Amino acid sequence: MLADDELGKERETLSEPLLPAYFKAFDAIAADERNVLIVAEAPDSKVLGCLQMTVIPGLGYQGAERAIIEDVRVDKAYRGRKIGHQMLRWAIGEARRRQCRLIELFVHEKRASARRFYARLGFKDSHAGMRLPLE
Amino acid sequence: MLADDELGKERETLSEPLLPAYFKAFDAIAADERNVLIVAEAPDSKVLGCLQMTVIPGLGYQGAERAIIEDVRVDKAYRGRKIGHQMLRWAIGEARRRQCRLIELFVHEKRASARRFYARLGFKDSHAGMRLPLE
Repeated sequence: MLADDELGKERETLSEPLLPAYFKAFDAIAADERNVLIVAEAPDSKVLGCLQMTVIPGLGYQGAERAIIEDVRVDKAYRGRKIGHQMLRWAIGEARRRQCRLIELFVHEKRASARRFYARLGFKDSHAGMRLPLE
Repeated sequence: MLADDELGKERETLSEPLLPAYFKAFDAIAADERNVLIVAEAPDSKVLGCLQMTVIPGLGYQGAERAIIEDVRVDKAYRGRKIGHQMLRWAIGEARRRQCRLIELFVHEKRASARRFYARLGFKDSHAGMRLPLE
């Protein structure tokens, strides 16, 4: 799903087996209690969507933790069925359970429908998300 | 410094001693190898600036790690002396050393001079930074 995306297709490599780097990254996420990677599954266990959330400790806001959500994807064939909405509702609940003060995420300016999706969930567009590539 | 700021003054509490929540947050940052909190010091050890960087594992970009920088502050009395610039140069070098693929950060839309500062360092303003408060 990360590769099957107008932006992602240029930066992912699909092979069988997958590149070892993907497995290594998965293990790093699984080993870190501050990182959560969830998938949405169909009854037959087909993966329909994914989402990663990272909980970051910080001094600001009186020492509050905050959550960052990235890599939200839903299988193209299953869009419009509230799968993304359900994953986000789960993540918001999990961030509350972990007593996070806020949830942050970056949305590429080209993803207009994603921005509307997050706005409907209550996300405010008050910040610029700036990026520095290191290649 | 987090409190001595037009946005921060409304969300921090300065007391002597500081709220226990600040010490708890500091300990959580110090205990996590994926979190780095640095300070810029004068020769007399006075703290002039601070910066936090979090390194996040992820599946995207072929399993690349990325860094998120937050809570960049410089003492008002010491601005214009390239202290922020030096801290950012250090953080960029540290992110490269940790083989991060990119560095991300959020800048509030009201912080126009901060946006220009990061743009001069090469950061691109290609994303919206959206936030959901959880209070």
